[in-house]
Amino acid sequence: MLSYKAPLRDMKFLLNDVFDFQKHYKDLSNGANADPETVDMILQGMADFAENILSPLYQPADAEGCHFENGVVTTPKGFKDAYNQFVEGGWQGISYPEEYGGMNLPMSLNLIKSEMMGTANWPWAMYPGLTTGCINTLMQYGTEEQKDTYLPKLIEGTWSGTMCLTEPQAGTDLGQVKTKAVPQEDGSYTLNGTKIFISSGEHDLTDNIIHIVLARLPDAPEGTRGISLFIVPKFNINEEGEAGERNGVSCGSIEHKMGIASSATCVLNFDNAKGYLIGEPNRGLKAMFTFMNTARIGTGIQGLAHCELAFQNALPYAKERRSMRTLSGTKEPEKVADAIINHADVRRMLLTMKAFAEGGRSMIYHAARYADKMSQGVAENNNEEFEKWDDKLGFYTPILKGFLTELAIEAAKEGQQVYGGHGYIKEWGMELIARDARISTLYEGTTGVQALDLLGRKVILQSKGKIIRDYTSSIMKWCGEYALDKNMRKFVWALTKLCAEWNTLTVRLMLSARKDREIISAASVDYLMYSGYIMMAYHWARMAAVAYDKLENGGVEAPEFYKAKIQTAEFYFDKILPRTSGHAESMVAPSSSMTDMDIEHFAFLD
Amino acid sequence: MLSYKAPLRDMKFLLNDVFDFQKHYKDLSNGANADPETVDMILQGMADFAENILSPLYQPADAEGCHFENGVVTTPKGFKDAYNQFVEGGWQGISYPEEYGGMNLPMSLNLIKSEMMGTANWPWAMYPGLTTGCINTLMQYGTEEQKDTYLPKLIEGTWSGTMCLTEPQAGTDLGQVKTKAVPQEDGSYTLNGTKIFISSGEHDLTDNIIHIVLARLPDAPEGTRGISLFIVPKFNINEEGEAGERNGVSCGSIEHKMGIASSATCVLNFDNAKGYLIGEPNRGLKAMFTFMNTARIGTGIQGLAHCELAFQNALPYAKERRSMRTLSGTKEPEKVADAIINHADVRRMLLTMKAFAEGGRSMIYHAARYADKMSQGVAENNNEEFEKWDDKLGFYTPILKGFLTELAIEAAKEGQQVYGGHGYIKEWGMELIARDARISTLYEGTTGVQALDLLGRKVILQSKGKIIRDYTSSIMKWCGEYALDKNMRKFVWALTKLCAEWNTLTVRLMLSARKDREIISAASVDYLMYSGYIMMAYHWARMAAVAYDKLENGGVEAPEFYKAKIQTAEFYFDKILPRTSGHAESMVAPSSSMTDMDIEHFAFLD
Repeated sequence: MLSYKAPLRDMKFLLNDVFDFQKHYKDLSNGANADPETVDMILQGMADFAENILSPLYQPADAEGCHFENGVVTTPKGFKDAYNQFVEGGWQGISYPEEYGGMNLPMSLNLIKSEMMGTANWPWAMYPGLTTGCINTLMQYGTEEQKDTYLPKLIEGTWSGTMCLTEPQAGTDLGQVKTKAVPQEDGSYTLNGTKIFISSGEHDLTDNIIHIVLARLPDAPEGTRGISLFIVPKFNINEEGEAGERNGVSCGSIEHKMGIASSATCVLNFDNAKGYLIGEPNRGLKAMFTFMNTARIGTGIQGLAHCELAFQNALPYAKERRSMRTLSGTKEPEKVADAIINHADVRRMLLTMKAFAEGGRSMIYHAARYADKMSQGVAENNNEEFEKWDDKLGFYTPILKGFLTELAIEAAKEGQQVYGGHGYIKEWGMELIARDARISTLYEGTTGVQALDLLGRKVILQSKGKIIRDYTSSIMKWCGEYALDKNMRKFVWALTKLCAEWNTLTVRLMLSARKDREIISAASVDYLMYSGYIMMAYHWARMAAVAYDKLENGGVEAPEFYKAKIQTAEFYFDKILPRTSGHAESMVAPSSSMTDMDIEHFAFLD
Repeated sequence: MLSYKAPLRDMKFLLNDVFDFQKHYKDLSNGANADPETVDMILQGMADFAENILSPLYQPADAEGCHFENGVVTTPKGFKDAYNQFVEGGWQGISYPEEYGGMNLPMSLNLIKSEMMGTANWPWAMYPGLTTGCINTLMQYGTEEQKDTYLPKLIEGTWSGTMCLTEPQAGTDLGQVKTKAVPQEDGSYTLNGTKIFISSGEHDLTDNIIHIVLARLPDAPEGTRGISLFIVPKFNINEEGEAGERNGVSCGSIEHKMGIASSATCVLNFDNAKGYLIGEPNRGLKAMFTFMNTARIGTGIQGLAHCELAFQNALPYAKERRSMRTLSGTKEPEKVADAIINHADVRRMLLTMKAFAEGGRSMIYHAARYADKMSQGVAENNNEEFEKWDDKLGFYTPILKGFLTELAIEAAKEGQQVYGGHGYIKEWGMELIARDARISTLYEGTTGVQALDLLGRKVILQSKGKIIRDYTSSIMKWCGEYALDKNMRKFVWALTKLCAEWNTLTVRLMLSARKDREIISAASVDYLMYSGYIMMAYHWARMAAVAYDKLENGGVEAPEFYKAKIQTAEFYFDKILPRTSGHAESMVAPSSSMTDMDIEHFAFLD
C-alpha cells in the first residue's frame, strides 16, 4: 500500500533557509498574515489532512473509480467525507480575500497546500484544484455582482468550479471552438454545444458546479479572436443566492482512462444552458491565457507530487527487499542477501527520484513567490502589477509544467523498477503513480505545446533571447560569488559553462530560424528539457550552498540533513546534468530530418 | 481502436536486402526447408492470422481481463478460438524437429512469427511464447523418454508450458528459491512450495500445462548451486500418453496488474506435486540460463512490437487530427487547420517511434541468425555448436532485451503524446500499448539486471573488453568500405568516432573498477543504453547503405521506400544518437555520488 508523509523538513528548508519566505512576505500587502506561527499551522494542518485523510483513500478510490448513471456522477467511497472536512477546515479559501470568506494568506501557501494534497491523492485534489481556476477567473474578470454571487460559495468550497475549453475537434487549437452563445433579452446568453475532457465537470461533492465556458457569440469573428467566456452554473442561482433550478448543462458520460480514475472527466452537453458573459466579448481566450500560468504551475506541482510519492514508496522497499550481494562486498553477512538499497544502480534510481522531487520543489517554491505578487495584483485590482509578475512567471511556467511532468513520468518508472515485477502489480501501488503521472504531460498543453511556448513565444518572439540572457546572467552573478569557494567550485564551474552554452544555442537557433522556421518546432522539446535541467541544476547548487553554510555556521537541522542535500546535488551534477549534452547536440540539427519525408512515405503497409 | 498491419515490406527488406537470409539459410542443415516460397507462405500466413484474428481481440480482451474462480482461469472471449486456429495451423511447431511433429524451419522464422503475433496482441502471444521456453528446455535437457512424452503435444500446441522460477522472496536472486523436491521410490519427486508471477501458469487454452520448475533437493547446497529443474505437469500423463489425473499443482490467484491483463499471471501452489528431474541435480540454474538468451530475445521482440504498434496507430491520427498552422506556413489553406503531421515536433515523435521499430527489427533479425545456428546445435545434440552461438548471442541479448524494451516505453509514450488528451483514453488504445510495454523492462530480468549482465559479466568479467573491441572493429571495418562514399560519409564518420569512444570508455571503466567496484553497477544502465544507441546506429547505417545501393542499382521496392529508409537513418543520427553524449559523461562519474549517502539519510520524514 502506498503511503505519504509530508516532507516538512525539506519544505521548511526551502521556505526558511533557501528562499527566506518571511522576508519575501514582508513585501506583500497580505504578507503579515503569514507569520511563522500561521505558516507552521497551515503546514502541519494540511500535512495531517493529506497524510491521514487523503492518502489512505488514494489506492482504493482508483480501484473503485467514479460511477456514472443517468447523468449522475458518484465519486469513490470516502471522497465526499474528505471533501466535507476540507470545507470545514476552510482550506479552499486560504489564499483568497477575506471579503469573500477567505483567509487572505499569500498564494504560495495555497500552492504548498496543493502540493501536499496532490502528493497524497492527486485525483481527489483535482476537484478543489479546478475550483481554483474558476475563482481566479471570477476574481479578475467578474463584475462585482458576479463576484458577490459566486465567490463566497466557491471560496467556502460548498460550490465547485470547472474550466470548459476542449471540444471534440478543438484541443490545443481553441480557435476551433464551436459552442455557441446567443444573447437573450435579459442580458444572459443561451449556450449550445459539447465540451469534452472536463475535469470535475459533474460529481457529488458540492451543491453546485460553476462552469467557466469558452463559446462563440453569433457575430464572432472566426478563430481565436471570436471566443468569449461565460459563467454557466449547473443549478441556476435563486433569489436567496442558493442553487435553484437545474440549468441546461448535463454530463453525457465520463471517460475511461489510463489513470486518475477517481477524478471524473466529463463530456458536458450544453442544451440551451443559461450563461453569463464574463469579461469582454471575443476576448475570452486572452482571459483564459492569463490563468494559464497558475494552471501550469498547478500541473508542475503534479510533476513534483509524483516524483515525491514514487521516491517515498520506493525507499522502504529498497531497504527491505534482499537480493544478491553488493559488488564491493557483502554488506549484511548475517542475512540471506543484501538489501537492494546497497546496489549502486538501485541508489541511482532512488537518488534520481529524490533529486527530481527536491529540485522540483525548489523550482516550484521559487515561482510561488512570483505567484504571490501576481495574485496580490489581482486581489487589489492592480492590473499593471498583475501583468508584471505574470510576465515574469511566463518564463518559468512552461519549464515547470513541461519539464517537471516529464521527470515525473521518469520518476514513477524508476519507482516501479526498484520494485522489479512487483512494480507492475496493483496491490503495491507503484503502477498507480505511473498511470496517474502519465496524464500530466498531456493535459494543460502537452509537452510539445509547453516547449513551443518557451522557445517560440517566450524566448524568440517576445524577447529575442533576452529572457535567457537575463536569466543566465543572474545565475552567473550568483556563481561569481562562489567562484573561489572550494566546496562550491564544481557546481559553479559546470553551471557557468552551461549558461554560456545556453546563450550560444539560443542565438544559434534564432539565426537558423530565419531560414528554417520549422527548426523552432523541431528543436523545442530538446530546448525545453535542456533549459529544465540547467534550471534544476541552479536550484541544486543553491541548495548545496545553503547546506554548506548551515554545516559550517550551524543550522536548525542535524548535519546529516545538510550533508544529504550536498550529496544529492553532487549526484544531480554527476548523473543527471550530463543529459544536457545530448539535447544540445540534437536541438541544432536542421529540421530537414523531420520535414523532408513525404507524408505518404512514413509507412509502407499495403 | 488499435489495428495492426504486418509491415511485410520492411521485413522483407531486412530478410532479403540487408541480411540475405537465403544465403544464411544455405549454411543451416534445416535451411533448405526455408526456400523463398516457404518463407513467403509463413510470412503471409502469420500476417493474416495476426492482423485478422489476434489484433481485433487485443483491446476487448484487455477490458475483460482473465477470470479466476476456484482455481480455474478463464481467458478472455475469443482467446481460445484464436488459440485453436493457431494449433490447427501448426504454428507452434514451425521451428522444431519433424520427429516431434514440427516443420523444422529455422528458428528465425519462429522469431518473426512471434514478432507478428506479439505486435498484434502481446498478452495472447505470451501463452504460446511460454511454451517455447518449456520446449527448448526439454529439447536440450530432457531424456529421450521425457522428450517423447511431452514434446509432440507441446509442439502440436495442444499442451502448453511454463517456466516457474520466481518465489515471493526470490526474483532476480534465484539462489533464494525455497521450493522443495523430495525424491520418491519410483524415481519421481514430490514438490512443495509456492511460485509467483507464473505467466500462463493456469488457463483454459490447452488440455494440459507442463511446468518447468526450479526447486531444491533435500541435500542441496545453499544458494544458486543447489537448484534443480523439474517437470511438473498439471495433469499426470496416463498410460495412453494423454492428460490423466490432476497433479498437486494449483493456481492460488492471479495478479491484478497495470497491463497484460489478458495474460494470466499466476500464483502456483505445489502441494505434494509429482515432478520429474530434468537435467543434472543441482545444475538447474545453469540449464535455466542457457535459455535466457532465447527468452531475452523474446522480450526484445516485445520492445520492437510495442514500438511498431505505437507508430502504426499514431500515424493515421497525426494525418487526420487538425490543429494550428505549421510554423513554416499554412499547409492546407482549405482546411480549418493543418493536420498535425505537418508540425516538425509531431514528426519528431513519429520518426522516433519509426526509427526505434525499424532499427530494433534490424537488431532482432541480425540476432535471429545466431539463434538459427544455436538451435540447430540443440536439435542435432551438438553442444559445442550450441555453446559457440549461445556465447555470441550472449553479447547481444542484454542489449536487445534491456535497450529495446526501454525504447518501447518511450515509443508508447510518444504514441500517446501524438494523441494529446486522447492518448490517455482507453477507447483509442494508445494507453494500452503504454501499459503493456511497461512490463517489458521488469520481467525476464529488469533493465538493471541486463545492464549488469552486459557490463559486469559479458564485457568485463568474461572478456576484459575484448567483446567490445571485436564488435567495434567489425563496425569500423564496415565503415572503412564507405569512407569515400559521399552519401554515407556522415554516417560512417559519426559511427567511427563513437566506436573509438566506446572502447575508451570501456577501458576507463575497467580501470576505475579496480579501485571502485561499485562503478560497474553505477555505470551499467548508462553503458547499456549507450551501447544500444550505437548498435542501432550501425543498423541504421547499414540500412541506409543498402537503400542507397538499391536507389542507384534498382531494387524491387519503389524509390520512395528506400528514400524513406535513408531519411529515417538521417533522423536517427541527427536526433537520437546524440543521447550517447549524456550517457558517456554520466557513466564515468565515480560511484561515490551514489554510494556515499548513508542508508538512513535518504529521507528525513519524521
